[in-house]
Amino acid sequence: MDIDIKHPYLLFLGEAHDMLAAKTAIGVAHWRPEWCVGQLRLPGCNATCSLPDLTLEQAKEKGAKTVIIGVANRGGKFSAAWIELMVKALGLGFDLASGLHNKLTDITEVVAAAKQRKRSLFDVRHPTREFEVGDGKKRTGKRLLAVGTDCSIGKMYSTLALEREMRKRGMKADFRATGQTGIFIAGSGVSIDAVVSDFVSGAVEWLSPANDPDHWDLIEGQGSLFHPSYAGVTMGLIHGAQPDALVICHEPGRPHMRGLKHYPLPDVEQCMEANLKAATLTNPKAHYVGVCLNTSAMKEDEARKALEETGKKFGLPCVDPVRWGVGPLVDHLQKAG
Amino acid sequence: MDIDIKHPYLLFLGEAHDMLAAKTAIGVAHWRPEWCVGQLRLPGCNATCSLPDLTLEQAKEKGAKTVIIGVANRGGKFSAAWIELMVKALGLGFDLASGLHNKLTDITEVVAAAKQRKRSLFDVRHPTREFEVGDGKKRTGKRLLAVGTDCSIGKMYSTLALEREMRKRGMKADFRATGQTGIFIAGSGVSIDAVVSDFVSGAVEWLSPANDPDHWDLIEGQGSLFHPSYAGVTMGLIHGAQPDALVICHEPGRPHMRGLKHYPLPDVEQCMEANLKAATLTNPKAHYVGVCLNTSAMKEDEARKALEETGKKFGLPCVDPVRWGVGPLVDHLQKAG
Repeated sequence: MDIDIKHPYLLFLGEAHDMLAAKTAIGVAHWRPEWCVGQLRLPGCNATCSLPDLTLEQAKEKGAKTVIIGVANRGGKFSAAWIELMVKALGLGFDLASGLHNKLTDITEVVAAAKQRKRSLFDVRHPTREFEVGDGKKRTGKRLLAVGTDCSIGKMYSTLALEREMRKRGMKADFRATGQTGIFIAGSGVSIDAVVSDFVSGAVEWLSPANDPDHWDLIEGQGSLFHPSYAGVTMGLIHGAQPDALVICHEPGRPHMRGLKHYPLPDVEQCMEANLKAATLTNPKAHYVGVCLNTSAMKEDEARKALEETGKKFGLPCVDPVRWGVGPLVDHLQKAG
Repeated sequence: MDIDIKHPYLLFLGEAHDMLAAKTAIGVAHWRPEWCVGQLRLPGCNATCSLPDLTLEQAKEKGAKTVIIGVANRGGKFSAAWIELMVKALGLGFDLASGLHNKLTDITEVVAAAKQRKRSLFDVRHPTREFEVGDGKKRTGKRLLAVGTDCSIGKMYSTLALEREMRKRGMKADFRATGQTGIFIAGSGVSIDAVVSDFVSGAVEWLSPANDPDHWDLIEGQGSLFHPSYAGVTMGLIHGAQPDALVICHEPGRPHMRGLKHYPLPDVEQCMEANLKAATLTNPKAHYVGVCLNTSAMKEDEARKALEETGKKFGLPCVDPVRWGVGPLVDHLQKAG
């Protein structure tokens, strides 16, 4: 079964104790405000997506079709309160979609309620179909892949900002999701880090099939070639993506690789070179089209200076996609044809 | 459950139509002759491990404990004849171990017979335990990893030849299996290409835990950083292995990457450089200790010349592990301490 999640969404934030715990819901609300009728929070929740607080019944009236479990659950367990709410949502006719490691399809009551009301359960972190081994054959259409010096450094936001800007200019462009938040935002995709390692590049080939010659697939990157936990995922993704265009994502000043205090971030130039080498195996024409910096921790003048200096250093458009958009990067793409 | 396959083995070759179809059984017989009491072939079998042909009953008398399904099955199905034989083997008290994609544990009759006789079923291609995400932390002990210009180019044979030679010299050395044939030969291991991509480096960290300072783990490599289907597996394996010592494996004259006629083999030097770069992320001291060439298609004088020239070119011992052993490589390792 391929993933195809129906919107509009009601975003469930549970008892998220801070914004970080609700980052999936916040990402969906940021990129697909038109798909989100509201949020549902339980007592103790300290996060918000800045959407109206709705009950299940109110969300139903507003036309919501799917409840998105967009929050991390403590200790990996579903509480009785969550299960009760999920069963009620199914009874009201909602589908459920979750990005958690634990599966909705492992909860007896939820499975029974879904079956009874013929509703769908989406555990987007768990692929529900089998993939072929990648064959490395060139597909038609254009492909852009975001790579990064680290995990969680802005690859998804960069690709989504590109999709928004390119569509605004009338270009054919589709964001291709490879992680759970991205899948909620696209309504489909493959959680690539949950695919059996032999099939990673094949899964990305499947995710980004042949297309019109002037169509851009904007493929969400994962991990980093320099992250000792996840570089294999990144490598398989790069090869399956066969990117024509690469965007490098970086956060100046980040002290160490995510989750690993004993690993410093790689030098940006060295990281660009390694990713380009990997990409040219399946697409000899791969090249960089821009740099995306996450400057959220910087003051405005400091951030502008960083963008300018980095752009000059690499001879490429350099942008902060969230702060000031990706206009210069898309100008460059359009000029290059 | 960790894999721990009991030997002696009876090697089941089925109706293998040629030697290639039986390469798992042949590898086991080559590297663990002392564990193999014989082979069992069905009518139509054209392969042999050069072991006595035995019935199940005869193998039982000779002390065999496990029947190894060491052959590819056509179309991925278990025939009625195979199932009948497997049920009979379980009835006689054998365990069963298979390296096939299809699982023994999916065959109702086999599962029932195993349960009734309290026998074990090992589907070694399918990991039966969960792994952690890799943390890239340095472990004690020494590690050697075989990398290669392609898949199926001699990485397993090279590491096994090293284990044999090092043990002969009284060195502490253990082969660590990462593929199905290797697992039968070691009696344990992880079929790394079947691990979910997020956990590949963590699985290798688990497979090669901290050990005595003078102990060598000889880790079986998989795939190639230059194989567009499998490079992600290779990358995760390299990072998890944290190799001190690297051995590069190559077959001179191979026309293209295995299974992909549109991809030529990489240049050996370029391949060595890419693997070394990847390895230094988790072990900055990683370095090459030798080159292993598969010269099976060459005449003797041609092969000797190739070894000599390649050794000179890279300033490293260069051997064909199967033809003439790995003596010079182990000399080098011992000198280097």
